[in-house]
Amino acid sequence: MPAILPGETDIYAVTDARLSLGRPLAFVAETLLNAGVRILQYREKNLKAGKMLEECRLLRGLTRESGACFIVNDHIDIALLAEADGVHIGQEDLPVAEARRLVGPKMLIGLSTHDPGQARAAKAAGADYIGVGPIFATQTKEDAVAPVGCGYLDWVARNMDMPFVAIGGIKEHNIAEVARRGARCCALVSELVGARDIAAKVAAVRAAMRQAL
Amino acid sequence: MPAILPGETDIYAVTDARLSLGRPLAFVAETLLNAGVRILQYREKNLKAGKMLEECRLLRGLTRESGACFIVNDHIDIALLAEADGVHIGQEDLPVAEARRLVGPKMLIGLSTHDPGQARAAKAAGADYIGVGPIFATQTKEDAVAPVGCGYLDWVARNMDMPFVAIGGIKEHNIAEVARRGARCCALVSELVGARDIAAKVAAVRAAMRQAL
Repeated sequence: MPAILPGETDIYAVTDARLSLGRPLAFVAETLLNAGVRILQYREKNLKAGKMLEECRLLRGLTRESGACFIVNDHIDIALLAEADGVHIGQEDLPVAEARRLVGPKMLIGLSTHDPGQARAAKAAGADYIGVGPIFATQTKEDAVAPVGCGYLDWVARNMDMPFVAIGGIKEHNIAEVARRGARCCALVSELVGARDIAAKVAAVRAAMRQAL
Repeated sequence: MPAILPGETDIYAVTDARLSLGRPLAFVAETLLNAGVRILQYREKNLKAGKMLEECRLLRGLTRESGACFIVNDHIDIALLAEADGVHIGQEDLPVAEARRLVGPKMLIGLSTHDPGQARAAKAAGADYIGVGPIFATQTKEDAVAPVGCGYLDWVARNMDMPFVAIGGIKEHNIAEVARRGARCCALVSELVGARDIAAKVAAVRAAMRQAL
């Protein structure tokens, strides 16, 4: 099981075909991985399950080759069939304890959280890591909740003894602030898959993050 | 494992909250089951998985009490957690062989089919029954394919040695024709859950179906 959070700082790339400037998923994923991304989440909405499984198997192959961690958003059945390292779910998806019954003890379960109560509940329910956000406003998720700003991130960094991933509107220009507040892992969607030069953007984002520490 | 198709004729009720005239799912399901429905499928779109699991557990309880067969549409993870008798999938969902890996040998797998090639492939892949349709035009499914009319139903009745369920636009006024063409099991959505008097509609539909044979 690859660690979701290596000791060093890292970025967590999330796919979104609608933001990828028409480039094929295989190209986007390979470019991210070749640029050194170690955690890749497949998050696609409005696709049928058959197509999602195909795409996840493609990403599973690529992440396995490069030794990266592969997470599937929402779809536990597809995560299982694609032999993903983890599944990421939201507050209104299946409860963590139910998801655990399906995925067994080894698959990582990540849960999006938006306030301290949800963070504590996630840990108690056995989540392996939590998403913390949205840090900033984002247009990427249609059903995104209002940004919780950096206050919640500060609280998590000080109070939660578990891996967490900051997410929501994180870009090259603001990732330093997020890192300084204690986030060792930052998830980015449009900033990476929507970049004209994905490899250059990965390098710039990582540099900005590391410089902040 | 309840038989999906008892020897006698039967109707297969499918839920749809949007068509249920604002009545709660528990009321609709109990009324259907008390009226003698022996096969109930949960099919709700646009709900989050957590809510779906709750509703499926409710229906699992009710169907177990009444000895009815309970099928979940699309969501294999929820079908597993709710201990449904079966899962019903479409051509663009996970392939039957992949679904079987998740649900094991006992859970029924139903597959929607629209032409002879799909019917033969469903049987070869190990589907337990096939949906045959849409027989007539229907507004119930947003992504419904064009009606295949009674021609495909005739072909299935003559050529396929496996359980099948006719579906798509079947109403009290046309179910006799479907039954005469060889359908022993007919699925109805809006005609049942959208009826002002659900119990009376179930009785009328069954009478029309039986009279045709």
